Amino acid sequence: MPDPRVVIVGATGAVGRVALQVLEERRFPLASLRLCATPRSFGKKLAFRGQDLVVEEANAALFAECDLAFISASTAASRELGRLAADQGCVVIDDSSAYRMEPDVPLVVPEINGDDVGWHKGILSIPNCSTTPLVMALWPLHRVNPIKRVTVATYQSVSGTGAAAMAELDAQARDVLAGKQPAAEAYPHQIAFNVLPQVDAFLDSGYTVEEQKIVDETRKIMHAPEIAISATCVRVPVAVSHSEAVHVELERPMGPDEARALLSGFGGVVVVDDPATSSYPMPIDATGKDDVFVGRIRADASNEGGLVMWVVSDNLRKGAATNAIQIAEEIVKRGAWLRQPV
Amino acid sequence: MPDPRVVIVGATGAVGRVALQVLEERRFPLASLRLCATPRSFGKKLAFRGQDLVVEEANAALFAECDLAFISASTAASRELGRLAADQGCVVIDDSSAYRMEPDVPLVVPEINGDDVGWHKGILSIPNCSTTPLVMALWPLHRVNPIKRVTVATYQSVSGTGAAAMAELDAQARDVLAGKQPAAEAYPHQIAFNVLPQVDAFLDSGYTVEEQKIVDETRKIMHAPEIAISATCVRVPVAVSHSEAVHVELERPMGPDEARALLSGFGGVVVVDDPATSSYPMPIDATGKDDVFVGRIRADASNEGGLVMWVVSDNLRKGAATNAIQIAEEIVKRGAWLRQPV
Repeated sequence: MPDPRVVIVGATGAVGRVALQVLEERRFPLASLRLCATPRSFGKKLAFRGQDLVVEEANAALFAECDLAFISASTAASRELGRLAADQGCVVIDDSSAYRMEPDVPLVVPEINGDDVGWHKGILSIPNCSTTPLVMALWPLHRVNPIKRVTVATYQSVSGTGAAAMAELDAQARDVLAGKQPAAEAYPHQIAFNVLPQVDAFLDSGYTVEEQKIVDETRKIMHAPEIAISATCVRVPVAVSHSEAVHVELERPMGPDEARALLSGFGGVVVVDDPATSSYPMPIDATGKDDVFVGRIRADASNEGGLVMWVVSDNLRKGAATNAIQIAEEIVKRGAWLRQPV
Repeated sequence: MPDPRVVIVGATGAVGRVALQVLEERRFPLASLRLCATPRSFGKKLAFRGQDLVVEEANAALFAECDLAFISASTAASRELGRLAADQGCVVIDDSSAYRMEPDVPLVVPEINGDDVGWHKGILSIPNCSTTPLVMALWPLHRVNPIKRVTVATYQSVSGTGAAAMAELDAQARDVLAGKQPAAEAYPHQIAFNVLPQVDAFLDSGYTVEEQKIVDETRKIMHAPEIAISATCVRVPVAVSHSEAVHVELERPMGPDEARALLSGFGGVVVVDDPATSSYPMPIDATGKDDVFVGRIRADASNEGGLVMWVVSDNLRKGAATNAIQIAEEIVKRGAWLRQPV
């Protein structure tokens, strides 16, 4: 079987740059790699496996010469370029919310529903970066003892918004430390030394789009439309890695020891849970790693048989680039990218 | 009736300095004000109502010349000095956890259980700074529709730990921005650009002391020993003001509009809840204010008839100094400080 020709759309963004690293680290089989971004980056060079790759325009001709496209750009760009790439026979793995909830688009976390890769129609989606760590922590419990209800409060890093927000946190922090009033552009309010209980726009329900994504995507990935979920999504002044405080109610009681064993035995999850040494997952430790880290596993004191846990994961890696590349690996393994006559 | 002679123990600390401001702002009736702190601050001068007050040693002789003592120091200091002051006939309002759960010590948030001031035996406690905003947001609902269960995830500022932790966040942030490895002393790990899912020490249950305080203190203040509560307490890189994501289950269903009306009508609570203009409570807005701010009020999508809300409050003010001084005002109003023969 030949190796696929791959393109990264959004290669200069926060996720795109990590995708280049992850492709190198995982020795992803490549016939060729091309990089696309917005016009202001055309001609820019990015290093990959000792070579300089030039950033190009994403267009039909380019997609016709590729087999797999990773798209990590704006939702608007995904809407346009995702269909365009698929129409050229390219299998698209999209990082935006553009296609996630469409019935003919698999929404995949390979450790959980890798088989859903099999029925793609040209476009697959990866979950939102706050959903992926949550389902990675829920699934090992859910598959032996169905989860009935989940409440979650998030502590999301600014890199979830992109490179500009990361620069803004940095600039605002410098301003505050210098006694200056910081300017806010990436968010409605200052994020440095503050927390914002808003991620994405508001819906009529009073929840945000981000909070609703957690509900819809978790149900789709786990094939569990009946799970009751409520989320509060909060932006915190952290550069990379999202954290989540999670309450879980299951069909039957589950103790912390059983949960710890199930989570420890699940590939892609690492349990860090030793209160005696103040060991628990934290953004500064999770950043740059592909695993989802779970700790603070304890009985829910407010609900007999329920659980509470603390989940941290690098939103640019497992929350985005790594998960996308893992999906690509599933596709390659199944030969599910081999070109059909267009 | 004469005005009381007052002493602040811990006057140079984060809470002590705010207490001086709040006494000025509220024109608290004073016959005299004395300031105490640890030996390294003896002789230091702090401004109050246009005068310079000298920091002294806290001892029996000084307490014998005072009627009311605000103590905001370490729990160990409170244990020693609280009893000493009370033995000298001084009414103690203590900010530590030393006495809070003792049966003969009222634990008071005046808007909720001001009447408990009446049965003090010389010592009263104020709640922990993560409990006070929570009960202020729960009580207006609870008193018309009993609350059965509460889950809360906190976003707590470093000033809850004290002035040294505030300086450390500042210093660490400067180090990180300069590309240097920051040193951690106030906490087990770096707090700048990170979040720590640990506030205070761990108990055998897997919860922290801080999380257990929320449970015990909420029940005591609201006279509601049956409420089920589970908390996850998290330190965030914010200087002042604590935030909390709260899920509430009540005896009967309650909609967001009713909750909003009940909260708006409760003195000391301000509802900030207009998603259309991205208006919600935030630490940078709450800091320096005495109110508890509540927003993001919405139906719990995971539990019919339940509610979710977002609560923010200045932990040095309503979470500490303001609440203590409001208790003192209750005591003065009732003449409950007038010296009994020792």
